[in-house]
Amino acid sequence: MTAFNPAPLGIQALEHTVTFRHQDQPDISVTVSTNTLVSEAARQAGIEINQPCGGQGRCGRCAVQVTLGSVRRRSTIRLQPEDIEQGYALACQSVIEGDAVIFIPPQEKIERRLTTDRTAAEVTVPAGYEYERQQTIRRLHVQLNPPSMDDQTDDWSRLQTAVRLQHKIENLQASLPVLQKMGEALRAGDWQVTIIVDLSNVLQSLEGQQPVRLLDIQPGLRDEYSPLWGLAIDIGTTTVTVWMVDLVSGQVRAQAAEYNGQIARGEDVVSRIIFASKDSGREEMRHRVLETINTLVESLCKRTQSQPEEIVKAAIAGNSTMMHLLLGIPAASIRLSPFITAINQPPPFTAREIGLAINPEARIDCLPGVASYVGADITAGVLASGLDDAEAITLFLDVGTNGETVLGNRDWLVTCACSAGPAFEGAGMQHGMRATLGAIEEVWINHETYEPRCRVIGNVKPKGICGSGLISLLAEMFISGLLDKSGNINLSLPTKRVRQGEHGPEYVIAWGEESESGQDIVITHVDIDNLLRAKAAIYAGFTVLAEQVGFNLAEVEKILIGGSFGKYINVEKAIQIGLLPDVPWERFVFLGNTAVRGAYYALLDWQALERIEKIARRMTYIELSADNAFYEAFTSALFLPHTDMSKFPSVEAAISVKPEGLPPSA
Amino acid sequence: MTAFNPAPLGIQALEHTVTFRHQDQPDISVTVSTNTLVSEAARQAGIEINQPCGGQGRCGRCAVQVTLGSVRRRSTIRLQPEDIEQGYALACQSVIEGDAVIFIPPQEKIERRLTTDRTAAEVTVPAGYEYERQQTIRRLHVQLNPPSMDDQTDDWSRLQTAVRLQHKIENLQASLPVLQKMGEALRAGDWQVTIIVDLSNVLQSLEGQQPVRLLDIQPGLRDEYSPLWGLAIDIGTTTVTVWMVDLVSGQVRAQAAEYNGQIARGEDVVSRIIFASKDSGREEMRHRVLETINTLVESLCKRTQSQPEEIVKAAIAGNSTMMHLLLGIPAASIRLSPFITAINQPPPFTAREIGLAINPEARIDCLPGVASYVGADITAGVLASGLDDAEAITLFLDVGTNGETVLGNRDWLVTCACSAGPAFEGAGMQHGMRATLGAIEEVWINHETYEPRCRVIGNVKPKGICGSGLISLLAEMFISGLLDKSGNINLSLPTKRVRQGEHGPEYVIAWGEESESGQDIVITHVDIDNLLRAKAAIYAGFTVLAEQVGFNLAEVEKILIGGSFGKYINVEKAIQIGLLPDVPWERFVFLGNTAVRGAYYALLDWQALERIEKIARRMTYIELSADNAFYEAFTSALFLPHTDMSKFPSVEAAISVKPEGLPPSA
Repeated sequence: MTAFNPAPLGIQALEHTVTFRHQDQPDISVTVSTNTLVSEAARQAGIEINQPCGGQGRCGRCAVQVTLGSVRRRSTIRLQPEDIEQGYALACQSVIEGDAVIFIPPQEKIERRLTTDRTAAEVTVPAGYEYERQQTIRRLHVQLNPPSMDDQTDDWSRLQTAVRLQHKIENLQASLPVLQKMGEALRAGDWQVTIIVDLSNVLQSLEGQQPVRLLDIQPGLRDEYSPLWGLAIDIGTTTVTVWMVDLVSGQVRAQAAEYNGQIARGEDVVSRIIFASKDSGREEMRHRVLETINTLVESLCKRTQSQPEEIVKAAIAGNSTMMHLLLGIPAASIRLSPFITAINQPPPFTAREIGLAINPEARIDCLPGVASYVGADITAGVLASGLDDAEAITLFLDVGTNGETVLGNRDWLVTCACSAGPAFEGAGMQHGMRATLGAIEEVWINHETYEPRCRVIGNVKPKGICGSGLISLLAEMFISGLLDKSGNINLSLPTKRVRQGEHGPEYVIAWGEESESGQDIVITHVDIDNLLRAKAAIYAGFTVLAEQVGFNLAEVEKILIGGSFGKYINVEKAIQIGLLPDVPWERFVFLGNTAVRGAYYALLDWQALERIEKIARRMTYIELSADNAFYEAFTSALFLPHTDMSKFPSVEAAISVKPEGLPPSA
Repeated sequence: MTAFNPAPLGIQALEHTVTFRHQDQPDISVTVSTNTLVSEAARQAGIEINQPCGGQGRCGRCAVQVTLGSVRRRSTIRLQPEDIEQGYALACQSVIEGDAVIFIPPQEKIERRLTTDRTAAEVTVPAGYEYERQQTIRRLHVQLNPPSMDDQTDDWSRLQTAVRLQHKIENLQASLPVLQKMGEALRAGDWQVTIIVDLSNVLQSLEGQQPVRLLDIQPGLRDEYSPLWGLAIDIGTTTVTVWMVDLVSGQVRAQAAEYNGQIARGEDVVSRIIFASKDSGREEMRHRVLETINTLVESLCKRTQSQPEEIVKAAIAGNSTMMHLLLGIPAASIRLSPFITAINQPPPFTAREIGLAINPEARIDCLPGVASYVGADITAGVLASGLDDAEAITLFLDVGTNGETVLGNRDWLVTCACSAGPAFEGAGMQHGMRATLGAIEEVWINHETYEPRCRVIGNVKPKGICGSGLISLLAEMFISGLLDKSGNINLSLPTKRVRQGEHGPEYVIAWGEESESGQDIVITHVDIDNLLRAKAAIYAGFTVLAEQVGFNLAEVEKILIGGSFGKYINVEKAIQIGLLPDVPWERFVFLGNTAVRGAYYALLDWQALERIEKIARRMTYIELSADNAFYEAFTSALFLPHTDMSKFPSVEAAISVKPEGLPPSA
């Protein structure tokens, strides 16, 4: 350990030695200048400190303990006087002013699991998909006349001529790296080659002179029916989903999803934007999400026994902030009034430009968004849901970190957004997890004994609770009386499952001996607070939107629910907690991840891509943050199910009966 | 030093320690496996061994001395038996088979000097140049309406709309890096910006929907009349020339030239191609020429007080091999029958793609070539010379490392090429140098005393001899009798200036006390041999070409001489050595570096670029290597001035008189 050497009084040293003590690790010392943030000093020492709020000093979760020396605290929010006495300080809000020794508590691990999505088996190729008509990426065979002393035409002109004669492509273009490999491919294939081209421009304009990009050239005449790969990608604030698609057959061959690696630098879009606005934050955010995607792609390639270079196209959905951060475009203006995006409709890029680890020439379509808080995930979702072509007045609800809502039909479309947070995706919860093997996805609680019964994905020992499980659990706890209207846990009930835990009151869903980790699985008061805020924001969003255009929710004929876990919500229970409106169940349709599905359609069919662009132009965005009505609606919805019980007659009836929750007979 | 440990007989060690001893340097040891080339082992040790023939084992100039252990010599060409006895071996032809200690003789330095070209002051803006009509790169002011809660249009759409309304540009496109900086520029300029666009597509097609690329965006309304920079570049095999051009006024503001950094890896194009075909040779060649160009650009920026990012366009001329090597495109097929280029007409690139250290978005036009040995330097030269528009039958001669010839007029154009070598550019000569300060550019020799008088560029002490000086010297030595018809130095003459030197017979042009370095400046028998071969190749090229199309040289009405030193040749002396045909002097026009001049026109005027493309399509290439007539003509021309003296009546007359060469009366 470095000798401790505080600056003498009145003499301000310019450089200080900070020693970090990190559980089970050797001490690491760095030298930093006065006023360096503790979080920055830790970064220089190579130590990861999670900053769920993006370093705003809001969440209090980056607290560290100064055990020798002192730091200057710019803010002590979320720290108790006794915490400060013990040396605790927020890493993102405290600066170094002299030598110090700082203890960094164990960081919450954001669990990384590569898994097959539950919906994997359920994706079917769109009816009538024809590779030769709808796909812009084509693999073609070309046979050239070999050169001779009588025909010294250069390779590139020779190839262009053969492609013109054999495939009626008038204006073949290529990047420098493709030109660099061309000559060897022509000779290795003895003047027979297979080329991959992008016909987007020609198909869109129906004009033969439009440039056609040569993506790849390979020696010999390759089998046209082996897979030609594409990716449909949804970059959610919390979860990134990738589908690996055979572009020839149109089939989804594998799926994978993972928490977005940016979570460690902010749980919601505003925190991410704030983090990205600092120093090297923009570059870090870009790298984090690229790493998530590239890791998913690597795993998909293994599962499909393919090479990343064989992936020649991708369509990407995601909210506007995610799209800006992926592209490394400054996002600060999204957060500040008047809330302006740098770009809603990015041009097509290559994988090389973006940094995706697939064929560097692959065409990347970043789908178009509408506004700062209604992005490409929603335009893609509207396409996937068919809302833009519906006759009936329809509400489309994306239940994710941002609760976006679209209302309308084939004649008109309005949209709004609110920040729900990541609770329903299991992130930031004590025992939250994604809907993968070991997740509790449904809960029933006995109204006499308060004993729970759980359904676990894969019928294994539970590891945690996923979004649908959280909704189910919250509803059952409320109906059984474990929770009051405000979401407080009743500690006086005669069961050991309610108790005072480290983070306040909690309810034990599974005892250590039943769980995979051997630890109790609990839901805490803090978790419940997060869930209440998330559901209140979503409910307030769609009710205010409907009011603004003069509609009553009862008049809405169909409610489409999107979002990565949206397919597994139990309607009854979602109504019981006040997440969904109390209307007849048959009006709800659960669609799952509509964003990735929309990206999948755009990947296969250039007309679907054009339709998404049309949807983006058609949608009228209504800014909720400019509206007091939203805040009032949100506050009223911060209860189970709502302050105004008359809006939830079916729930009122259920409470008065209090029957035991029963598993479905199946 | 590493212990010396030869492998025991019969046991073949797989790894060997090779220790290099390098003048004045500490020994460097590397471990390499059996059969590693000595040149490769030296490269691993970080030691530069020049390979003028590209590592073919032809030139013998990479010889090293094995002082302990032994190597296996695959070839002993150019080594005498006593050399081999002393341990000499060719680094490019010998492989390691056991531990060894190898002495590397001092390497010839390829002198790097950044200088103003002699022609700098003489370039004038083409008559009638109009920035607003002929230049594709335009700087425009744009004023945008600031966004508000009532107008939340994204930045990019806002900019596109303003550009459409204010400048009638319908289809503005931008790369990701420009989109990344756009938002900050718009806000920093308070919604007033200066943009730089490339209108090439629109100008060429006269169609408003064609894409217009946004190259740069800067906050505020910048002065439209400050320079907007472009580069005209000629990549010669031996010399790289760069002109720094103000695109608005059209004026050349500075010029610089330098030996091509690839020379150390081959003196002619064939050697370069061979080197580039090995392992990492292609990448090394690309980096070497880029480094030469980027160093020249850095110096030009200093002299014009500008920033590399302000350079937004470049036009590049160069022979086909130079163009392939610059672009990193494999060039092997250029050298092998049927002599095919990968690409004659490269598409426009950005500086980022190529690796030029200027504005990464700068538009780069690599000018089009015709065939493997008639490249963009010649098409650009034909444009600059006006040959393609001439009425009279004209011969255009590029006197460079490759002697290219064009014959024709506005109705027809034929062309051929031959390999002359770098002698006339001063490279590979004992005291050769470029035509810069201190170069002997003209010589007169007293026919009685054999004492020379010299004119030196800048009137300073001489450092060496440039191309025009070498022609002058050769002619004077021949006419004065210092040389016989075959180029042998007459050692029996009564002057101390002829002597037996280290490399055979030589003539001293300046004694040590007169020269800058304090060393004697000499021309050796080997130098004279190189010059004879160079002039014979050029002479054979144009005579055979003329014969092939049924013309006698006497019928050619005009002879245009291009090439970087072509402007300073003394016609009389060039005829005396048999470099130029013996026709009336008034038929010769000396144009200097026509390649860079053609690039300059293409840089300023999109129609000049189109005219070069038209020239490339019009030219008929005649392959000399397929022709015995060339070899015969070459052999006959390996004399002073020629075997057939009747072809040079004026020279015959001069020899019979032998007057003392006199400096011009001026």
